[in-house]
Amino acid sequence: MNEVHATINVNEIQKLVDWLAVFGATTEGGVTRLLYSKEWVQAQQSLKKKMIDCGMQVYFDSVGNLFGRIEGSQEKDSVILTGSHIDTVVQGGKYDGAYGILASLLAVKRLVESNGQPKKTIEVVSLCEEEGSRFPLTYWGSKNMMGDYSLKTVEETTDKEGVSFIQAMEDAGFPISAYSSKKRSDIKHFLEIHIEQGAVLENNQLDIGLVSHIVGQKRFTISLNGQSNHAGTTPMTERKDAMVCAANAISKLTALAKTTSSSLRVTTGQIVVKPNVPNVIAGNVQFTLDIRHHESEVLEDYCHKAMQLVRTLAEKSGIQLSVEKWTDITPVGLDTALHELMRDKISSKGLKYTTMVSGAGHDAQVFGQHLPTTLLFVPSKNGISHSPLEYTSPEHLENGVLVLMDYLYRLAY
Amino acid sequence: MNEVHATINVNEIQKLVDWLAVFGATTEGGVTRLLYSKEWVQAQQSLKKKMIDCGMQVYFDSVGNLFGRIEGSQEKDSVILTGSHIDTVVQGGKYDGAYGILASLLAVKRLVESNGQPKKTIEVVSLCEEEGSRFPLTYWGSKNMMGDYSLKTVEETTDKEGVSFIQAMEDAGFPISAYSSKKRSDIKHFLEIHIEQGAVLENNQLDIGLVSHIVGQKRFTISLNGQSNHAGTTPMTERKDAMVCAANAISKLTALAKTTSSSLRVTTGQIVVKPNVPNVIAGNVQFTLDIRHHESEVLEDYCHKAMQLVRTLAEKSGIQLSVEKWTDITPVGLDTALHELMRDKISSKGLKYTTMVSGAGHDAQVFGQHLPTTLLFVPSKNGISHSPLEYTSPEHLENGVLVLMDYLYRLAY
Repeated sequence: MNEVHATINVNEIQKLVDWLAVFGATTEGGVTRLLYSKEWVQAQQSLKKKMIDCGMQVYFDSVGNLFGRIEGSQEKDSVILTGSHIDTVVQGGKYDGAYGILASLLAVKRLVESNGQPKKTIEVVSLCEEEGSRFPLTYWGSKNMMGDYSLKTVEETTDKEGVSFIQAMEDAGFPISAYSSKKRSDIKHFLEIHIEQGAVLENNQLDIGLVSHIVGQKRFTISLNGQSNHAGTTPMTERKDAMVCAANAISKLTALAKTTSSSLRVTTGQIVVKPNVPNVIAGNVQFTLDIRHHESEVLEDYCHKAMQLVRTLAEKSGIQLSVEKWTDITPVGLDTALHELMRDKISSKGLKYTTMVSGAGHDAQVFGQHLPTTLLFVPSKNGISHSPLEYTSPEHLENGVLVLMDYLYRLAY
Repeated sequence: MNEVHATINVNEIQKLVDWLAVFGATTEGGVTRLLYSKEWVQAQQSLKKKMIDCGMQVYFDSVGNLFGRIEGSQEKDSVILTGSHIDTVVQGGKYDGAYGILASLLAVKRLVESNGQPKKTIEVVSLCEEEGSRFPLTYWGSKNMMGDYSLKTVEETTDKEGVSFIQAMEDAGFPISAYSSKKRSDIKHFLEIHIEQGAVLENNQLDIGLVSHIVGQKRFTISLNGQSNHAGTTPMTERKDAMVCAANAISKLTALAKTTSSSLRVTTGQIVVKPNVPNVIAGNVQFTLDIRHHESEVLEDYCHKAMQLVRTLAEKSGIQLSVEKWTDITPVGLDTALHELMRDKISSKGLKYTTMVSGAGHDAQVFGQHLPTTLLFVPSKNGISHSPLEYTSPEHLENGVLVLMDYLYRLAY
């Protein structure tokens, strides 16, 4: 058997997305489905039933990752894992994470219907957590599977309401007495499909993104301590104006980013000013710096130059500088060889693709550090995500399912 | 009689300042004495008694300006007015406004004690309001005296607690049935002494500032509407980053200010960013621009260039711009001829002075648009004002009283 034969229904995936979006639906048309919440439990339990209906063996692991398994005929201990995460940000959209689970479910269902039992085992996974929106930790689902987390990490973690992580986990049905973060060694490949969360595919009228790398990320908070003073009585030459220093820094850091590499992305999204009053010179400014690139060298080099630049500016203005680095994620390379093998297959469907870098983090990033991993994108309308306005057309959703089927077929049949 | 003869007590003025600071004293060591508040009423009533003790005829006008009058022997209808304002900002200092009233009171008391009745009438005034800290209007006291306000202005004005301006005024003992804003035509000169609220005198080890102009002020809010987007997935070239546009603007506007005139003061004290999240490109940024200079032409010219600059930057980034001008005060020239006449007098006391521009607004600015007006400064420690840390040494306070006595002697005797 060399080909995928399945009866396709374009609306099938859209219906599944709409169905799952009910769990945690907000009045604004978005979805809020936080880790271990009531809505989260309902979503996972309903997905479990759906997997059973698709003829899968189902099980939860000790932290609440849900698996739907189709055992392989020849290599049952070699697992091809496909899926994404079930949690959302607060007031998120219907597609981020959810689409990857449902596309996997549908692809596997169709493959089994049309082509029977795979040679290798396929598992569809609904990962319990990726966003870090309820508790301040991300990738709880995938990192547990890879042995990258332990209970120690979450021992003192609480949400904004003061509910402890461990209490929330137990309330959702996952007692810590059963906890394990033993690395799963049976997984031979992880395959994730996700919305792009950017506008590259849409702007270039493309259907599929073949992701080669997930960017590394460094995030800093730059604190500038100058001197608050009267806006009318302090000559320009005698000021230690933290706002002007911050403005000069952001301006120059952006210019430096643009000349360093076209793939480099540098963002100041947050600024906090004190006292933040129109007629008082700002004594204290804190701003963030989010820096992303898929090559460690470029990332390191830019950060080095950036810190030098900020230091020089602060010194010149008599301003005290302190820098805190609070995120440091290394870039991850994905399985591009598999993409190469699939290019003709994608084209033969009349679909247009491009190789691209993911500027956002994904569970594929966690698995990609341990085993061959593939990440595919479908377009996001206007590049919007983490918003009720998040949207991907039913056609693009279905194209993604079709391509995913081909990838799974090659990996497991 | 050509000279001022008085017995001087260096601690007298300090004691008066400490005495008045009790009304509205805060636990942090500052003063909060808002227009028509209980503390304000107590302060004005106590000042009234103090004026009577000094042998003055006392009266309130219809909005609560308090006057202590020493009638002139030859020109009783020609009034030399001297004083400042009784109100403070929230958590202000002991000196701003209060010092000007008390220095006037003490100077007149000493003059009468040593030199008897003046030829012209002298009135010491405790102006009811200058800061605009309780209600969103400034110079209520001085502007009413000059006929620049009417009840219409405050008809719908309320404070943060929802108390109407008129109710507050009536509760303080000033019923609107008695209201009048008829311009006083008997005032021939206004003389104000005030703390500098800047560090020019202190930095140059000077005792007295002879103010030649009060700056004009223009305040703008610049709103930049770009596009909020994902910090990781949006290439630098496809961004409409309102934060970067604001940073470029603030940076260039500051540079432009520095090359325009050494007396120009341009400040961005406030910035409001949406959504203000580290990993999201800022879609919307509002920042303020406070621009001050003592020459209208320089002010107009800078503002014109500034708006052009911001417009160009916004257009280049595909960002929507809107500009709101919410303050527009013209510069006011003061009576420099009188300063000239007094220079030798000041020097003969061993005091060092300089001619300077006031970067802050004062009641002298209101009177200065209608009649000859003089403004004097004493040093502010570290240039700090509007803070419990506001401080001027007893010696500097006393020096100010001595100089004020000389000015009053020349004007009224």
